[in-house]
Amino acid sequence: MSSAIAVGATIPSVKVKENSPAEAAPLSLTGKNLIVGVPGAFTGVCHAQIPGFIKNYDNFKAKGINEIFVTAVNDAFVTKAWKADLAPGGTPVRFIADDKAEFTKALGLDMDATNVLGGPRSQRFVIVTDGDKVSKLIVEPDFHEYTVTSADQVLTQL
Amino acid sequence: MSSAIAVGATIPSVKVKENSPAEAAPLSLTGKNLIVGVPGAFTGVCHAQIPGFIKNYDNFKAKGINEIFVTAVNDAFVTKAWKADLAPGGTPVRFIADDKAEFTKALGLDMDATNVLGGPRSQRFVIVTDGDKVSKLIVEPDFHEYTVTSADQVLTQL
Repeated sequence: MSSAIAVGATIPSVKVKENSPAEAAPLSLTGKNLIVGVPGAFTGVCHAQIPGFIKNYDNFKAKGINEIFVTAVNDAFVTKAWKADLAPGGTPVRFIADDKAEFTKALGLDMDATNVLGGPRSQRFVIVTDGDKVSKLIVEPDFHEYTVTSADQVLTQL
Repeated sequence: MSSAIAVGATIPSVKVKENSPAEAAPLSLTGKNLIVGVPGAFTGVCHAQIPGFIKNYDNFKAKGINEIFVTAVNDAFVTKAWKADLAPGGTPVRFIADDKAEFTKALGLDMDATNVLGGPRSQRFVIVTDGDKVSKLIVEPDFHEYTVTSADQVLTQL
């Protein structure tokens, strides 16, 4: 675990997965975006936190957000299943699999979750980007909760 | 990856998880049991293979099987979500999270799935136990398929 990425720094160009476990590419960041990092698909708190971003998608768009990426250190089959579970009718929110934790580690936002989840995972955070630059970083102090990283709270920061 | 466990050997007493990511215990093996190892929850092939074991549960019981354990190198949140997805009405088939791959490695039945799934995973296999001793080991030659490890084929071996 290194230090967290600084405001103004460039989002690392590390490959992640979305629709297929066989295809990997860096996030394509144009305009303002949200990167919402979560400790794990299907975990209780993440499962409660993320619906806020799905439900408020239009409110984020109205604030000028181009894309919302939810990133998790899970494989692409699991993130796809999680998306389908949270949004059976579909959602423009994009669910991203950082299956080797390389993106999360490059952001300096990983944590050791070996005891509970078997390996390294992501801290709970929200990054606002301007293009591929970090314009705001919000890290949840206790990853068991979502307070400052709730969709409602993030909306007030935009 | 070491060699696979031999017929007659004792199932290693390695802790795995079932209902909670915070509770770990070795499998409790009494009488004849099946251990069905799969590469990953929610992956296409496993998602097609495991319903056969759920549907045929009574047929396995009629052949003297005490418990069916489906084991995967996933965390306990994911294996619980997978069970709920495959058996919305519930099933006595037990879904086991080997989140650190320690059980799978102790069986010598792990494989490197870093490129596709981010880390070590389980080969596709079925072990029949007599108490905690291996009485039969069936390993799928190509883990992308399920032929000899299908529920129907395993039933003919009991």
